[in-house]
Amino acid sequence: MAFELAPAFVPTSHAVCDLPLCHVRLQADARYSWLVLIPRAEGLVEIEDLAPGPRAQLMDELVRAGAAVRAIGAALGRPVEKLNVGQLGNVTPQLHVHVVGRRADDPAWPGPVWGVPGAEAFAPDALQRSLAAARKALG
Amino acid sequence: MAFELAPAFVPTSHAVCDLPLCHVRLQADARYSWLVLIPRAEGLVEIEDLAPGPRAQLMDELVRAGAAVRAIGAALGRPVEKLNVGQLGNVTPQLHVHVVGRRADDPAWPGPVWGVPGAEAFAPDALQRSLAAARKALG
Repeated sequence: MAFELAPAFVPTSHAVCDLPLCHVRLQADARYSWLVLIPRAEGLVEIEDLAPGPRAQLMDELVRAGAAVRAIGAALGRPVEKLNVGQLGNVTPQLHVHVVGRRADDPAWPGPVWGVPGAEAFAPDALQRSLAAARKALG
Repeated sequence: MAFELAPAFVPTSHAVCDLPLCHVRLQADARYSWLVLIPRAEGLVEIEDLAPGPRAQLMDELVRAGAAVRAIGAALGRPVEKLNVGQLGNVTPQLHVHVVGRRADDPAWPGPVWGVPGAEAFAPDALQRSLAAARKALG
């Protein structure tokens, strides 16, 4: 399958790893523990565009990403209290699913994180700890 | 399994039908074609709380709900252009998944619909057409 990551993801996220179906990225926003899963197949926009087998695989990888998001929060001393999962694509149509760790003290709580401006870059150390925690949890 | 719908869903949505896993409701907001799926089991908060079999069933029902949301949009003369799927639960913790039909002319586009105030009640005829379209698509 020919897969090319949409360029919009590059400045807004950091590569984490590849799972059997999805390329996994860490959202470049230090305010949240936030992974983005992009199924590695061409021309996907909606979940319905996946065949039933890959759909079940996506569900499996979403749940694994939830554990990884919790691991990122723990590594940063900011335990995740709630998971939020979203598949929107209103701006970047390439099929992708957000798995976000939420806390009652995060700036968007209890609203959604999507579409809220003000992303904050990671400090280098926090970025490395986040990536390491995500890779270990997904490995 | 003992299932009791969280009371918060009652004033904000209309019962549509039951699928094998989920109770399906129409969000009481005439601005959108919007279904809410609530897995009918007790004590669920996150997708990870479902066993792998029900997780796959939830994915299947989400995709069916997407088709139903498109059917609602068609019945109202407002074809759906994009699907948005969200599992948040920051306010109402009982596990539920939103499947929302979006259009570039809807009031929240391209942002998410969640957390945006201003829900508009359905006119009786539009409500009946929406429920009929959803039930036919999910039947």
